[in-house]
Amino acid sequence: MAHEEIRNLVGQLAETSTDLYQGSFLLTWMQSESNLKAVLLAAEALQKMARAGVSSKLFDTGLGISIFRDKSTRTRYSFRAACNMLGLMTEELDESTSQISHGETVRETASMISFFSEVIGIRDDMFLGAGHKYMQEVSDSVQESYREGVLFQRPAVVNLQCDLDHPTQSMADLRHLIETCGNLENLKGKKIAMTWAYSPSYGKPLSVPQGIITLMSRFGMEVVLAHPEGYDLVPETLEAAKKHAAASGGSFSVAHSMEEAFSGADVVYPKSWAPYKVMEKRTELLMARKHDELKELEKHALAENARHKSWECTEDLMKRTRDGKAHYMHCLPADITGVSCQEGEVAASVFDRYRLATYREAGHKPFVIAAMILLTRFEKPADMLKACLDNVVARRGCVKSLAAR
Amino acid sequence: MAHEEIRNLVGQLAETSTDLYQGSFLLTWMQSESNLKAVLLAAEALQKMARAGVSSKLFDTGLGISIFRDKSTRTRYSFRAACNMLGLMTEELDESTSQISHGETVRETASMISFFSEVIGIRDDMFLGAGHKYMQEVSDSVQESYREGVLFQRPAVVNLQCDLDHPTQSMADLRHLIETCGNLENLKGKKIAMTWAYSPSYGKPLSVPQGIITLMSRFGMEVVLAHPEGYDLVPETLEAAKKHAAASGGSFSVAHSMEEAFSGADVVYPKSWAPYKVMEKRTELLMARKHDELKELEKHALAENARHKSWECTEDLMKRTRDGKAHYMHCLPADITGVSCQEGEVAASVFDRYRLATYREAGHKPFVIAAMILLTRFEKPADMLKACLDNVVARRGCVKSLAAR
Amino acid sequence: MAHEEIRNLVGQLAETSTDLYQGSFLLTWMQSESNLKAVLLAAEALQKMARAGVSSKLFDTGLGISIFRDKSTRTRYSFRAACNMLGLMTEELDESTSQISHGETVRETASMISFFSEVIGIRDDMFLGAGHKYMQEVSDSVQESYREGVLFQRPAVVNLQCDLDHPTQSMADLRHLIETCGNLENLKGKKIAMTWAYSPSYGKPLSVPQGIITLMSRFGMEVVLAHPEGYDLVPETLEAAKKHAAASGGSFSVAHSMEEAFSGADVVYPKSWAPYKVMEKRTELLMARKHDELKELEKHALAENARHKSWECTEDLMKRTRDGKAHYMHCLPADITGVSCQEGEVAASVFDRYRLATYREAGHKPFVIAAMILLTRFEKPADMLKACLDNVVARRGCVKSLAAR
Repeated sequence: MAHEEIRNLVGQLAETSTDLYQGSFLLTWMQSESNLKAVLLAAEALQKMARAGVSSKLFDTGLGISIFRDKSTRTRYSFRAACNMLGLMTEELDESTSQISHGETVRETASMISFFSEVIGIRDDMFLGAGHKYMQEVSDSVQESYREGVLFQRPAVVNLQCDLDHPTQSMADLRHLIETCGNLENLKGKKIAMTWAYSPSYGKPLSVPQGIITLMSRFGMEVVLAHPEGYDLVPETLEAAKKHAAASGGSFSVAHSMEEAFSGADVVYPKSWAPYKVMEKRTELLMARKHDELKELEKHALAENARHKSWECTEDLMKRTRDGKAHYMHCLPADITGVSCQEGEVAASVFDRYRLATYREAGHKPFVIAAMILLTRFEKPADMLKACLDNVVARRGCVKSLAAR
Repeated sequence: MAHEEIRNLVGQLAETSTDLYQGSFLLTWMQSESNLKAVLLAAEALQKMARAGVSSKLFDTGLGISIFRDKSTRTRYSFRAACNMLGLMTEELDESTSQISHGETVRETASMISFFSEVIGIRDDMFLGAGHKYMQEVSDSVQESYREGVLFQRPAVVNLQCDLDHPTQSMADLRHLIETCGNLENLKGKKIAMTWAYSPSYGKPLSVPQGIITLMSRFGMEVVLAHPEGYDLVPETLEAAKKHAAASGGSFSVAHSMEEAFSGADVVYPKSWAPYKVMEKRTELLMARKHDELKELEKHALAENARHKSWECTEDLMKRTRDGKAHYMHCLPADITGVSCQEGEVAASVFDRYRLATYREAGHKPFVIAAMILLTRFEKPADMLKACLDNVVARRGCVKSLAAR
Repeated sequence: MAHEEIRNLVGQLAETSTDLYQGSFLLTWMQSESNLKAVLLAAEALQKMARAGVSSKLFDTGLGISIFRDKSTRTRYSFRAACNMLGLMTEELDESTSQISHGETVRETASMISFFSEVIGIRDDMFLGAGHKYMQEVSDSVQESYREGVLFQRPAVVNLQCDLDHPTQSMADLRHLIETCGNLENLKGKKIAMTWAYSPSYGKPLSVPQGIITLMSRFGMEVVLAHPEGYDLVPETLEAAKKHAAASGGSFSVAHSMEEAFSGADVVYPKSWAPYKVMEKRTELLMARKHDELKELEKHALAENARHKSWECTEDLMKRTRDGKAHYMHCLPADITGVSCQEGEVAASVFDRYRLATYREAGHKPFVIAAMILLTRFEKPADMLKACLDNVVARRGCVKSLAAR
């Protein structure tokens, strides 16, 4: 029965036309709705195959390279799990032990790590205006090397978080909403509050809120963004959210308090981020290596943050949501008041009630990344999954499966 | 013929009932004798399969995660080899590049790295009273996440050395003794001297001597522990050794000199460790980050150590053992007088005579770890090994094997 | 048709007798011409199999260990790709997290990381007189442990760059020349200029120029070495180049200017390196940890380098080569004037014209390394490749291939 359900998903995938093959996955707003739906279907199929113990090892050999320019637990392991479930061996490019410091250019490195690679996953979220550009350059470089015959295959570049978007997070969040609400259609008209929340740190990337407002507005949701004055997002993402809402029959609006945003919400996503202007200044100072001024900026930003400690997801606020039972979401780790910090983004009792739900939310990420690799690297991804179902190899105890042939 | 011998072992394994499936392997004294025997049988079968070139790749995909909170060569590579021989891809959780510092809790991290993982190997041996607790918490967390459907499989936690025990070492040592003495029965009545020895360093974990006295006393050996005054082990492990000796018909006693312990011994295991009280103090100071007091403690402990330089495994001491030919054991690396230090645990001529034997001793570890993974992750491990033997895939040249079908 | 071409190569390989099985690959001049030809044939076959999408996964399980004592991008990824295409999982020995600092000997470590390993790749190029010796010691140690039954298989040690040679680079360069010139025979009589070039750094290893002059002189090329006074290579390599040239009907000579070396050259390889005497002094000071004197040496060496800024591969120099169209080669990364540094080894316009060609040159390395592993680890390597061609498993979409059986 599990298999029937998976075959049904694979059938739907076969009917969803995409142009992802031989490309990269950088920003969700660069992708057609059809591409996004294909990722969602493939992710669900892969997840159900994993649960049913069916192997999805479609590569006999090949590498998946990751480049992390910022810390990561969830995304790092999700990328590795995604590569592994498809049969790719992972390697992390540690820029400090490579010769990148010896004057190697981006396009050179991109080719040098790609001779046997099918995917390059990159996290580069610290520098505003730089992360996405870097990924685009890597993608253009492997494209050139493939076109010129230097590479025998064209590795996909998958954005594991940049300055603009965090598509593997937002797509995993969307998968979670679909599972929670039943199906994608059900999201129409549902209200989601993406709000700033207080954290005793500064400089958190903008990519999560930007990813959420641009993606959820595409599927008819009522998206409300709320943050204290000055904590603006990159303008281009606000524009995209407006455009998407208009096209999908949803809405996008900006509120000025958590109270307003939470009122009647079906879903809440309270999370800290740095003001756009602070990130801009920080990028400038980091690049100029002005350490004293950076400290000054941090001091100033933390003081500014501290003025908004009331932006906390409390039980009282939760009561304002639809029936007092909105779905709470977070990309983790959350700053939990009295647990991981003195005062934070969310009250301990609220977080605890949704703790396992946030783990489930995170659990979609490996399959979303695997879906992106599957769709960029195989011309007929549905045929591939069908072959896995037709010739079941048990993920565990595979020797027995092979013997049964 | 090699295959007949392996089939015989697999047959014995099939008749050995265990409750290891879906659990963790943390302390040998938490395991039944039957569980331990099953690990020994499976380890031997896997080793003989490796020697015969028979693949034991039972996982088509899946991850094995390691967390090393202390340095390691042997155990790190043994864990990786163990995962690889079963088909798991390994990843090491580097806590400095993860978001663990950002307020992530242990139970959260445990789930985040487990979505596609079958085993988590942990070394945490620096803090007395902390290592085992941490592993237990990780094990409880993945158990909860599995029960709640967050994880599709329940990764085993394997103790790669904690503050109390070093089960992959002691079980490998036991495998070595079995190979050396012929079989497990033969160990009955054999005398093993686990003695302290001088080393020009301090703060070595207690887990090896604790692991040895608690394990070898279960199989009828005459276990003698010897150390200078003050170099006590954790009381709970002495209690366990006494209880085991009483139950197995062996004995456990404490001697006060190497001379006494070595007299008539069949096996000697001279190795340095820190006094329990020093480790307690060290843990306290490390946690409080009192660096000056730590230096003071080290100075004091080294001075205390230096009073016991005569605790060295010399040729004269070896002559006191049974026929002057006791088996010398060490977990490596040994502090060899005149080779790796000026004055150390063992005389160069003694070590050199047993050097290759200590390598063989170490060589059991990959198979012991693989056996622990096999038994915790498969409900019918003997059936799995039988399937490997029925459908031989050559570890090298596997394409040819497949072709031959 | 691709397959016919590969079968032809495999047929030639079957007829090329080698003594590489169960050995290591350390210096090209320790290898017979027949061994080198076998590596070239196997590398070409493996490359064409990769291009045709045919899997060459010949190991079902097994590890490939790398030890990098210097930075690396290309070689690190090439080694990993090579291991992966044959089915080996890679692990990097990080000496800082192992117990090597705790008095472990080289021969002990060599065995400890080898219980399930098929190959150990080592880069150790910083210390003149040390790198090759270290690799030889590792090779001797695993040989002893294999002979004594400690190891069940004999891992090959592959030199990923030492103080004397860089065989995976020079063999990849030779593959590039063969592809560029049509075949190995065509290299006879072709002039290759291996010349020093200015770089704003010091202490670059000598292994590339030494590897080139010793290897290319074996196949009848007219090898010309040119460098400023004092930038000598290790004498033993000059001797080898002379001897090879005499035997192969080629020539080896030393010129005193780039102009002279480039005149009429078919191939140019302008690249910086440190003077032999400076490397000797540097090794001595590094080992004695004399940091002040090291700084003094660097200052002096950079000043000396700066006297030779005219040693740059310019358009004018290129015009002196055969028809002004010599093949430009570099092991990358190159110091490109105005791109990666103010003044460097090569003019930007020259490099840009050959940029993709240098990528292709680098692209041979994974296959050369894989060929070395194949030939050292399989007694009948041609039979293995033939089995891959007889039972084609698609590298991508392998589930479908298996299904088709």
